[in-house]
Amino acid sequence: MHLQPRLHTAEEMGAIYLVYKEWKVFFMSRYSYFSHLQCPQCGLIFSGSEVRQLCGCGSPLLARYDLEALRQVLPRPELEGRETSLWRYHELLPVERPENVVTLGEGMTPLLPLPRLGAAYDLPHLYMKDEGIIPTGSFKARGATVGLSKAKELGVRQFAMPTNGNAGAAWSLYAARAGIRASVVMPVDAPMITRGECAASGADLYLVNGLISDAGRLVAGKIASGGIYDASTLKEPYRIEGKKTMGIEIAEQFGWTLPDVILYPTGGGVGLIGIYKALSELLELGWIEGPLPRLVAVQAAGCAPIVKAWQEGASRSEFWPNSGTAAFGINVPKALGDFLVLEAVYATGGCAVAVEDEALLSEQRLAASLEGAFVCPEGAAAFAAARKLRESGWIRDGERVVVLNTGMGIKYPETIPVNAPVLQPEDALPS
Amino acid sequence: MHLQPRLHTAEEMGAIYLVYKEWKVFFMSRYSYFSHLQCPQCGLIFSGSEVRQLCGCGSPLLARYDLEALRQVLPRPELEGRETSLWRYHELLPVERPENVVTLGEGMTPLLPLPRLGAAYDLPHLYMKDEGIIPTGSFKARGATVGLSKAKELGVRQFAMPTNGNAGAAWSLYAARAGIRASVVMPVDAPMITRGECAASGADLYLVNGLISDAGRLVAGKIASGGIYDASTLKEPYRIEGKKTMGIEIAEQFGWTLPDVILYPTGGGVGLIGIYKALSELLELGWIEGPLPRLVAVQAAGCAPIVKAWQEGASRSEFWPNSGTAAFGINVPKALGDFLVLEAVYATGGCAVAVEDEALLSEQRLAASLEGAFVCPEGAAAFAAARKLRESGWIRDGERVVVLNTGMGIKYPETIPVNAPVLQPEDALPS
Repeated sequence: MHLQPRLHTAEEMGAIYLVYKEWKVFFMSRYSYFSHLQCPQCGLIFSGSEVRQLCGCGSPLLARYDLEALRQVLPRPELEGRETSLWRYHELLPVERPENVVTLGEGMTPLLPLPRLGAAYDLPHLYMKDEGIIPTGSFKARGATVGLSKAKELGVRQFAMPTNGNAGAAWSLYAARAGIRASVVMPVDAPMITRGECAASGADLYLVNGLISDAGRLVAGKIASGGIYDASTLKEPYRIEGKKTMGIEIAEQFGWTLPDVILYPTGGGVGLIGIYKALSELLELGWIEGPLPRLVAVQAAGCAPIVKAWQEGASRSEFWPNSGTAAFGINVPKALGDFLVLEAVYATGGCAVAVEDEALLSEQRLAASLEGAFVCPEGAAAFAAARKLRESGWIRDGERVVVLNTGMGIKYPETIPVNAPVLQPEDALPS
Repeated sequence: MHLQPRLHTAEEMGAIYLVYKEWKVFFMSRYSYFSHLQCPQCGLIFSGSEVRQLCGCGSPLLARYDLEALRQVLPRPELEGRETSLWRYHELLPVERPENVVTLGEGMTPLLPLPRLGAAYDLPHLYMKDEGIIPTGSFKARGATVGLSKAKELGVRQFAMPTNGNAGAAWSLYAARAGIRASVVMPVDAPMITRGECAASGADLYLVNGLISDAGRLVAGKIASGGIYDASTLKEPYRIEGKKTMGIEIAEQFGWTLPDVILYPTGGGVGLIGIYKALSELLELGWIEGPLPRLVAVQAAGCAPIVKAWQEGASRSEFWPNSGTAAFGINVPKALGDFLVLEAVYATGGCAVAVEDEALLSEQRLAASLEGAFVCPEGAAAFAAARKLRESGWIRDGERVVVLNTGMGIKYPETIPVNAPVLQPEDALPS
């Protein structure tokens, strides 16, 4: 008998993979409970053992875990004494062998009470999750450590990506540690310091006289020529898994309870999608109880496609023409994952808010002078939104509010005016 | 009977204080086991309950603890589950009431193995303690959190300090959080970004057309006019207590064992003095066993007074004229605590090494491109010294070596040359 070989359909491959995976989960060690990838739009399932980008339907893919099995093994969090990086949650991350982990010690960033700023906003329970205290100085390190660890596990040797600066810096430096070659394209207006980070890492760095959407087109052209991994936001399915750890950490740092509101500066929106995904997984595991915090997507008035969509009750956003803002990281005129951001906002009873550059720059100075928190302009936008939502009454009396500061203010030195007298050694200080 | 009031001598006050302190230690809660201040030069003892600067003999004062009492309560470290900041070691810090702690979540920085850079140096057990992953992006945050917390506890309302940039930035921002007024003087050549940090905090910032020694003279003039706390390096006794936590963390992160060698970029040298102090205290507590690591004071060839003193077997250094280096933080021509640095180096069988700017800048790029570690030029100097000491055989086969990186590379963007082509949106990336 001679069996005619034939190609399996994607559905068949998905089913075969699930059987294999069940066997593997049963017999092998469980550093990770990663199971497979799934398309949130059409439901199709893919193996996570080979390189994947978007689903055939055009949607990003999401990682799924054997949560029921994990629930049996770790019915309640027993994380004390584990390393103080995001890899303490390795069961909920997609890297299957610890030797593939590419780490610079990222995660478990401080969750700080801000009593003085909170008093100014009439928010006595205001907290900042400070993502500046992390390698490369921005939360992009979370996406890079998990994205590149998984890329290494999958045998990736080279990738390309567009960036507004910080993601490119993080991915370049983590790529250097992984021994993977990086090609990065960023707008000429992206923060100067992120150029230096890419250059120091030895990455191939290109500047484009345009926006991140233009950088994206240049990268797409290079990807089309073949052989290079596309590390564009959400075109690879794993950076979101790194970013979701912000949500797990917030829950752990509050003793497995939840705040009422989380405000997140939204460009591509992966962090917000990730936090929602994390909290949903923790609910399913029984590690936390609902209701989930109301998630707020904060944008700049000069680039607010998600806010416009939310105001219209739409499920997707439209390209925002001629976008511009001092909060450069959220200058994203059209996000690939916009529908996932909006879903998270709608599902949690959250909202989307736009703030003017003037308001966010003033909030940046206020946070530094009242709390010593020198936040990035994107983080400052989320503070401005907190003030606005409290003034409008949307945030209610006594609610526990977390603002995500996505990076260090020192990466944007031009946002702070400096007026310092220059003295000669023989002068005296004014009294 | 009428008792004639008289002034007690400093010795009598010290004795009275010790009796009071013993009573207090016995009856009150023990957040801190801080006991008193002591002059390491003349041995005089001072109460730690009021503002102190230098000893009358001109020496810095050091904090002493009731180690015997602590040893009975915490015979072995039971730190698991404690907060992941340096305040996990509160028993060994001088702040007596937790409500005085001024924190931004600093400490427990990563201790990272560097296998690829280690291979390049023939140091298979090379580690970096990464002090860039901390608020304000430099290890100066450790001194600021403890120094300002204690200042707050002592009722200080205003301070002044000279700085090479990073310390002023850290103290300004922590002062803002503490509600204490800061006056900071830095050389015009100090890293530009640190100006922005001071300005954002609302501190009074002055630039001086000279070196840190000139800034020190300006501050001394202001202090002489009265009413202002002198926060100059080692003129207040508590920042060293913050910096010593680097040593405690290294021991804890190695599972309460010790590396063979620690290399530390040395300007004022407080970190090195602090690490030696910490390890000595841990020895006395019985938390670790000796021998202590050989401590290496690394300086730049353009400013190497400690290296010169060490080569001459001297116990103090001399002012280094016309100093200059790209590693601006260690451009300190004469350190107040030089004798303590040299004592730590001699006592541990360590050494002092000078490296050229060219060597340290090249090491900075190598660390970024091999390990994704974008270190500051001062940290890079310590890497260059590790290479040099391995080549000379001073570091022996198989030794466990820790390099202290004192801050983020992004605070010194001018040290990295960037060559990136500028493309137009309609261009294509080179293949």
